[in-house]
Amino acid sequence: MKIAMLGAGGWGTTLAILLQENGNDVTLWEFNAEYSRTLNQFRENFYYLPDIKIPSQVKITNNLTEAVSRKDIIVISTPTQFIRNSFAEIQNFNFGNSIILNVSKGIENKTNLTVSGILLDIFKQIEKKNIACLSGPSHAEEVARKIPTAVVCASENIENCKIVQKVFSNKNFRVYRSDDLTGTELGGALKNVIAITTGIADGIGFGDNTRAALITRGIQEIMRIGKKMNAREETFYGLSGIGDLIVTCTSKHSRNRFVGEEIGKGRSLKEILKDLKKVAEGVATAKSVHFLSEKLNVEVPIMEQVYKILYKGKNPLKATEELMTRKLKEEY
Amino acid sequence: MKIAMLGAGGWGTTLAILLQENGNDVTLWEFNAEYSRTLNQFRENFYYLPDIKIPSQVKITNNLTEAVSRKDIIVISTPTQFIRNSFAEIQNFNFGNSIILNVSKGIENKTNLTVSGILLDIFKQIEKKNIACLSGPSHAEEVARKIPTAVVCASENIENCKIVQKVFSNKNFRVYRSDDLTGTELGGALKNVIAITTGIADGIGFGDNTRAALITRGIQEIMRIGKKMNAREETFYGLSGIGDLIVTCTSKHSRNRFVGEEIGKGRSLKEILKDLKKVAEGVATAKSVHFLSEKLNVEVPIMEQVYKILYKGKNPLKATEELMTRKLKEEY
Repeated sequence: MKIAMLGAGGWGTTLAILLQENGNDVTLWEFNAEYSRTLNQFRENFYYLPDIKIPSQVKITNNLTEAVSRKDIIVISTPTQFIRNSFAEIQNFNFGNSIILNVSKGIENKTNLTVSGILLDIFKQIEKKNIACLSGPSHAEEVARKIPTAVVCASENIENCKIVQKVFSNKNFRVYRSDDLTGTELGGALKNVIAITTGIADGIGFGDNTRAALITRGIQEIMRIGKKMNAREETFYGLSGIGDLIVTCTSKHSRNRFVGEEIGKGRSLKEILKDLKKVAEGVATAKSVHFLSEKLNVEVPIMEQVYKILYKGKNPLKATEELMTRKLKEEY
Repeated sequence: MKIAMLGAGGWGTTLAILLQENGNDVTLWEFNAEYSRTLNQFRENFYYLPDIKIPSQVKITNNLTEAVSRKDIIVISTPTQFIRNSFAEIQNFNFGNSIILNVSKGIENKTNLTVSGILLDIFKQIEKKNIACLSGPSHAEEVARKIPTAVVCASENIENCKIVQKVFSNKNFRVYRSDDLTGTELGGALKNVIAITTGIADGIGFGDNTRAALITRGIQEIMRIGKKMNAREETFYGLSGIGDLIVTCTSKHSRNRFVGEEIGKGRSLKEILKDLKKVAEGVATAKSVHFLSEKLNVEVPIMEQVYKILYKGKNPLKATEELMTRKLKEEY
C-alpha cells in the first residue's frame, strides 16, 4: 500500500521503517526543511531515534501536498498541539477514501479535543468513518528494536481497522481492532495525569503498593470520564487504556512521571518546567481534566488532587492523606 | 475487636501489628512452637519481617484452640498448601458467627480449590456468608513501613466487609469492599502464572511494551476463567485483579517472576527449582490452569504457552512468535 507518515519524530520514524519492512511504499514527511534534508542525507533520525537506520526505500520529503497525494493511508504522527498549525497547507486537500490514521496521543489544550476531533475540525471534507487511531503500550525505541509489542487500532468503520491490522502487523508487532475510537483516544490522552501522580508517589518515597493502587484506581477515573463521552468501559481495560497506563507509570523514560517525581521530592513546578526541555503533556491535561470533570459531573479524586498540587500549591502528603481517609466505600 | 491471626509469616505479622495499632486485641498464632517462643522473646520476626518491632500488646501463641477462642475475626494467613493440614486440631471448633477472613492467595494443588473452598471443605460447620477475603497489591514489607496501600475485602455478606473495612483501615491502609468473593480470590491465585510469563519476557531481553501487553492480555485470560466460575468481570479490573497483577509483574521481589526470568535466560525449570529455597506457586498453578481451562473450555493462549514452556520444554521464543502471529482479531 501507499502510505504517508506525517511527522518524523521517534514514533513516526519507527512506524515508517516498520511499514516499509512490511512491504509498503512509504513517504515520511518532516515539517522542518533542514532536518528533512539531514534525515535524507544520513538516513538516521539522530535526535529522536538514534542508532536506527532508515531504509533507502522510505521516501523523505518536506513537501506536504506531495506527501499526502495518492495515498491509501495517511498517518498523523505530529504532536497534538502542533496538528492544527502544521496542516494549513492541505486544509482543502481532497482525501477521497484514504484512511486517516492518528498515532499521536493527547488533548488539544485550547479546545479539549482529542486528535480525531481536531482533524474533523480542521478538515471539513473528512468523514469520521475514515478516521482511525492506533494506540497502546509502545515505546518507539522498543518497537524499532523489534521488541514484541501489541497495540489496538480503533475506527467506527471496522473494515478500516482490518486494513490497518494487515498493513502494520508482523511477528513483533500485533494489532488488535476495536470500534471504540473515542475510548481508544482518551486512554492515551489522559494517562499522563495519572503518570504524574505515580511520579509524585515515587518522589515522596512510597512503594510498589502505592503505584499499583494509583494505576488501578486511576484507570477507573479515566473510564468515568470516558463513559460520559460515550466511550465503552472495556476499552479502558485494554491495551490503549490500562496497558498504556502501566507502561507510562512504570517507565523511567516518561517525562510526566519525571515531573511528578521532582514534585514529590519537594521542587516547584515552575522550577521543574524551566529545566525540562521537552513538553510534559500531563501538566496541561491535568487542567483540562479539572474543567472537564466539573462540566461532566464526574468524580475523579486522584486527578483532582494532582490539579491542586500542580496549580494550587497543595502539599502532596496532605493530598495523599485525604485520598486515603475518604469515606470507606465499595470498589465499584 | 478480638482478632486471631493464624500464621506468622511476613503478611500475618504485618497485619497483626497493623490491627493492634488500630486499637484491636490481637493474638498471633505461629505453627512452629520454637519459632513462636523466639517471636515472643525477641518481638521481631527475623526470618519473614526483619527490622520491624512487634508491639508487646500482640499476644503470641502456639496454641491453636486458645488462639481462635472467643474471637470476632479469625484471619487465615497460613500458606494455601498448608491450610488443610494445619487446622486439623480445630476441625470441629464452633466458630459461631466469627468472621473467617482469608488473607492468603493461591489454589490448592490437589483440589484446584481457592482458600474459601478449602475452608468450606475442612470446616463443615462454617457458613459461606461468614467467610471473607482481603486481597490487593500489598507487599508486606511496604505495609509494615506504612507505605500507602489500597486493598479490597470481599464477602457474600457485605456487612462483614464493612466490619473488616473499619477494623483494618487507617491513613496508610485503605480497604474497599466487594461482594464478589470468588473473583477476588481468583485474581490473587492466578496472577502468578502471568508473573512467570512477564519474567520469561524480561529474561529473553524483551521490554516494557511486552510486559504491559502480557499484563493487559493476561488479565483477560484470568477473567475468562473467572466468568465461567461465576465471578464478576469488573472484579478483575480492580485492586485484587489487575492491581495485584501489576505489583507482581513489575516487582523485583516476586519469586514467580524470577523463575520466569531464569527460564527466559535459558535455564531449565528443574535446575531453577533446585536452587530456589521458597515455593513459586505459579509453577503449580500453571498446571492447574491448563486442566481448568480445558474443563471450562476457555481460551487462555498466554497461560497455555507458559504451561508448554514449563512442562513440555517448549522454546520461549517459539512460544512468543506463536502468540504474536495468531489470527488478527478484535480486542474484545
